[in-house]
Amino acid sequence: MYDVESIRADFPILAREVNGKPLVYLDSGASAQKPQVVIDTVAHAYSMEYSNVHRGLHYLSNLATENYEAVRGKIARFLGARDEEEIVFTSGTTEGINLVAYGWAMPRMGEGDEIILSVAEHHANIVPWHFLRERQGVKLVWVETDANGDLDPATVLDAITPRTKLIALTHMSNVLGTVLDVKTIVAGAHAAGVPVLLDGSQSAVHMPVDVDDIGADFYAITGHKLYGPSGSGAIHIRRERMEEMRPFMGGGDMIREVHKDQITWNDPPMKFEAGTPGIVQQIGLGAALDYMMGVGMDRIAAHEADLTAYARSRLDGLNWLNVQGNSATKGAIFSFTLNGSAHAHDISTILDKKGVAVRAGHHCAQPLMEHLGVTATCRASFGMYNTRDEVDALVDALDLAHDLFA
Amino acid sequence: MYDVESIRADFPILAREVNGKPLVYLDSGASAQKPQVVIDTVAHAYSMEYSNVHRGLHYLSNLATENYEAVRGKIARFLGARDEEEIVFTSGTTEGINLVAYGWAMPRMGEGDEIILSVAEHHANIVPWHFLRERQGVKLVWVETDANGDLDPATVLDAITPRTKLIALTHMSNVLGTVLDVKTIVAGAHAAGVPVLLDGSQSAVHMPVDVDDIGADFYAITGHKLYGPSGSGAIHIRRERMEEMRPFMGGGDMIREVHKDQITWNDPPMKFEAGTPGIVQQIGLGAALDYMMGVGMDRIAAHEADLTAYARSRLDGLNWLNVQGNSATKGAIFSFTLNGSAHAHDISTILDKKGVAVRAGHHCAQPLMEHLGVTATCRASFGMYNTRDEVDALVDALDLAHDLFA
Repeated sequence: MYDVESIRADFPILAREVNGKPLVYLDSGASAQKPQVVIDTVAHAYSMEYSNVHRGLHYLSNLATENYEAVRGKIARFLGARDEEEIVFTSGTTEGINLVAYGWAMPRMGEGDEIILSVAEHHANIVPWHFLRERQGVKLVWVETDANGDLDPATVLDAITPRTKLIALTHMSNVLGTVLDVKTIVAGAHAAGVPVLLDGSQSAVHMPVDVDDIGADFYAITGHKLYGPSGSGAIHIRRERMEEMRPFMGGGDMIREVHKDQITWNDPPMKFEAGTPGIVQQIGLGAALDYMMGVGMDRIAAHEADLTAYARSRLDGLNWLNVQGNSATKGAIFSFTLNGSAHAHDISTILDKKGVAVRAGHHCAQPLMEHLGVTATCRASFGMYNTRDEVDALVDALDLAHDLFA
Repeated sequence: MYDVESIRADFPILAREVNGKPLVYLDSGASAQKPQVVIDTVAHAYSMEYSNVHRGLHYLSNLATENYEAVRGKIARFLGARDEEEIVFTSGTTEGINLVAYGWAMPRMGEGDEIILSVAEHHANIVPWHFLRERQGVKLVWVETDANGDLDPATVLDAITPRTKLIALTHMSNVLGTVLDVKTIVAGAHAAGVPVLLDGSQSAVHMPVDVDDIGADFYAITGHKLYGPSGSGAIHIRRERMEEMRPFMGGGDMIREVHKDQITWNDPPMKFEAGTPGIVQQIGLGAALDYMMGVGMDRIAAHEADLTAYARSRLDGLNWLNVQGNSATKGAIFSFTLNGSAHAHDISTILDKKGVAVRAGHHCAQPLMEHLGVTATCRASFGMYNTRDEVDALVDALDLAHDLFA
């Protein structure tokens, strides 16, 4: 039995009102709220156990280092990674993908080499590859989602050519909610000798992930969407790829020896972690992952599957509402427009007056907006703490917006 | 009147014991402790006012964006920057200097171009330049500190050649405590047409800084040393340099438009801030800077000048102790070795047993260690909350270590 009210009670912000109405937070796809245990872990780390890590031999430094490094193992367990040394701490998915672009792709891709991307990528998984296009003449090869918002693995694999050097895809679309069959894609890509990067920013929040089973070369996650602190995150990198990579950022911790005229690197994963890291954010992320694993990722997924089905049925009943993406794999993310001239921003403003927080805009996915033929959508994105009542509140608020703009 | 006991009471961790002794925290140079107001600000941001920023139109998103963006102005005031749009948020000095290396230096430096560095740089201000040496044939030109640990501005300026493209220096040595005459260096460098980057990681903690008065092109600070959260920070970049820079990390927020085959950037400073930022860390940094400015940077500097003078006199009395650096400008950072064979790590372990937290090692400054002819030192680094009694505790613990190893 999934006791969503007990889970809600763990998230202090959910008890607040906005604009005189109870908060209905449907913007977890942009960033999730934090349970009290994460807030308390962060406060305790600063109040009682803070020091820099890896750098001292005194009691607090050792304690902070233990607390911090323990998170590497938690992330490995959360992601199903066999080897925690394949986990690199990052400040989030954006830094993770830039690490791959600068550290792995840039030194090995040149004029005419190809990277396959889907039109459904978030800008975090587009812009770093545009750098390679602009600076090194790499060709971006785009594959398209179908009318349901699905991406057939065959569409991806058919795009492979002898020049393909990387396939970079989201595991779950932040706009459509579509979940890709990444295992089939990775198997096919590897059969053709092509590494795969997956953006797990959304997927890891909503379902159990097993990176060893999926087999991708790079799997990036971001802590602030995982009910953890802002500025936390990690990327799983298979050892073979790690060994091919040069460092990205330079600074303390990632070196072994620094001389005036030569330098040697620390072993991975620290080779890719420069400077004083996000110590307390990562400790907070550890608490968030413990919280999620304590509830159980399969149970979270089941709760959200119920929410998704309920939301689909309720939203399908609104014949003036256009939901983008109707994949059978769709998770709890709903992007929509209203018939007529009402702009997504205006709709979100009306919803906000009723306490319903949704996002409006291009959701950092402009190529997908172009593909869908829209400039912006509203997006309601659900988390482990949302309820059927909140789906009803969304529908009521949409009814009001429709009445106002009809 | 500087009431250090009242300030100590604001830092909860200072009330704790380690190894059964009251904590004497002399490792603020590695990372400073946090006042309750910072811890509370972070907790409040997560508990009541959290959302992603720049991305929504709902109440919490607007509130979080206001709280976050207000910090840009606080950093500008703290650094004496006239224009808050010259402040780029970073995760710390390491990211700030890498931003300059990748975004400004890499596209404009080639084989034989020169960067002047001092031997007293922290690895954060060395390794990014080694990347340019390794990858692009840039020449690193090293200038040396003298026997007192001073760096004569003339030594720096004399090293300028027609190939010099950048001077990158620390404002205050994290090992020697020396404060450089950066205004003279910047004036001379600019007269020769050479931009200057300053690493303000230590200096901004200990003295009032006025970047407009100093005139450097780049001035990097790191929040965790400024009594703020880990993973917070900023770099001040003069507008002329910003306009020359290409983006560093790619992702959301730093773009204006993303298409399949072209891309346009957001205006600075956001052009250099990719992805969901360290929202709550930066909000916490704002609280830390408010706290420091509330006490007054001149009063903090005066308190630390007294501590420094007292520590110098006490440590000078130990004729078996070798303090590195004796500059007249020396701030509250003392690196030392003991006569004989006692290793810095062993000494720090003894001190730790007495509750005295110091760092031992190369302090991310291996070229300086080579220059000084040592492999490691112990370092006692002071902050706004330290006292003369703590200097005495350090001396007592050193006496014990000396007895044990004599």
